[in-house]
Amino acid sequence: MGALHEGHLRLVEVAHQHAERVAVSIFVNPTQFGPREDFTKYPRPIETDLALCESSGVDLVFNPPPEEMYPAGHAGASELAPLIIDLPQLAGVLDGRFRPGHFRGVCQVVAKLFNILTPEVAVFGQKDYQQLRIITSMVEQLNWPIQIVPCPTLRDSDGLAMSSRNKYLTPAERQRALAISRGLFAAQTQFAGGERLAGRLVETVEEILLEGSSQVPVSIDYVAAADAETLRPIETISGPAVIAVAARVGQTRLIDNVILQP
Amino acid sequence: MGALHEGHLRLVEVAHQHAERVAVSIFVNPTQFGPREDFTKYPRPIETDLALCESSGVDLVFNPPPEEMYPAGHAGASELAPLIIDLPQLAGVLDGRFRPGHFRGVCQVVAKLFNILTPEVAVFGQKDYQQLRIITSMVEQLNWPIQIVPCPTLRDSDGLAMSSRNKYLTPAERQRALAISRGLFAAQTQFAGGERLAGRLVETVEEILLEGSSQVPVSIDYVAAADAETLRPIETISGPAVIAVAARVGQTRLIDNVILQP
Repeated sequence: MGALHEGHLRLVEVAHQHAERVAVSIFVNPTQFGPREDFTKYPRPIETDLALCESSGVDLVFNPPPEEMYPAGHAGASELAPLIIDLPQLAGVLDGRFRPGHFRGVCQVVAKLFNILTPEVAVFGQKDYQQLRIITSMVEQLNWPIQIVPCPTLRDSDGLAMSSRNKYLTPAERQRALAISRGLFAAQTQFAGGERLAGRLVETVEEILLEGSSQVPVSIDYVAAADAETLRPIETISGPAVIAVAARVGQTRLIDNVILQP
Repeated sequence: MGALHEGHLRLVEVAHQHAERVAVSIFVNPTQFGPREDFTKYPRPIETDLALCESSGVDLVFNPPPEEMYPAGHAGASELAPLIIDLPQLAGVLDGRFRPGHFRGVCQVVAKLFNILTPEVAVFGQKDYQQLRIITSMVEQLNWPIQIVPCPTLRDSDGLAMSSRNKYLTPAERQRALAISRGLFAAQTQFAGGERLAGRLVETVEEILLEGSSQVPVSIDYVAAADAETLRPIETISGPAVIAVAARVGQTRLIDNVILQP
């Protein structure tokens, strides 16, 4: 969706390791935003983005106008669309519960981009872990001849997961937002120390997220432990798992996660 | 789905007009059958099919076992599938009302076949008119780099639209089934004579379908006039339209249609 940061540029770097030519799509996709979400105010610094792509050795930038992607118009994420791709089991949990229709919009636009750009390899960041799982499953189930390559989340030096939405944060909010990664890292340490009860790890994250007094309100959409492949909730961690967080810091909704490998 | 007849071989012929190499998929797709439909008894004369393909100059036949297409197993058409492609507006009418989940199964398998075979051109018969419209719209909406070529319905000399399911008919049932095409042709003639009220044309078909006494029971699922592109019901025919029929003759469900061009 553009507003490129170092996390995106790492995706480009990884893509270069897998392919001779690298294309970047920059498209703020209307069908994955809910009616009360930030579609209009989402940052679109296209000139900066193009310069970053150029200096990163990107061979092609695909930056279509919305009417080229949706010539018949488009319904928003939560409305009835003329074509729906849904993976109800993977999309009905975590972020899907809080953003109705979001992943349908994601699947729709990614399917379109796959058919337009016909990549052999596509790189997706693990910060959007549920999106990565849904796209991987879509590609497998529909036999798209595309290898999906996951790329670990990049973080600023203070721990905050890189996101185009970090631009919305005031300095005080950003300070407060650090509790998200701090909580996840604490759960990770606890897990490394032998804790296998998912509930305990989730509690750790929640406590850190809500601790301390601050002028900045934080509201948690969810803190959840899930099977890393199926995204089903888990009680005891016996295989690869993800601890995922979505929280609002002030007006800004942030997500983050860590992967746990027993 | 195999059980090839001359209608299928015409698809091959048309494909040869568009492409240097022609592939045929032969796969009785479980996900497009309802629980009470004829999945198990659907004919699978693979040796005859292969011989017909060979003598028609087919370059490749793709005839996968079901577990290769659905390694994780599959839910039937009407059950919750791990991945759903739906075009609610096009699939919620006509046959879609009588075969819940059918077109989801069709979209799923066709999407898979497109990604496996990566054709530049794909030929579909107009006998399955709603399927043709749904696939055309899916390809357009998802930007598949594939040209969909429609192929007019082939009929036996008595008028019956060719279908693999015609094999189910006893001689008496086949005789009775001719009322379907007879009704559609009568509507076509009436239309050519100037009739533009869809209800009148539908009545003509229904009357012919139900007329005469016979030992063979006929039950109509629907006779409908629809916009040829959107499949929405129409009252007055002012643009391309389709009159579509689904009826059970004995135990066998048959479909047929005619296209009307004002």
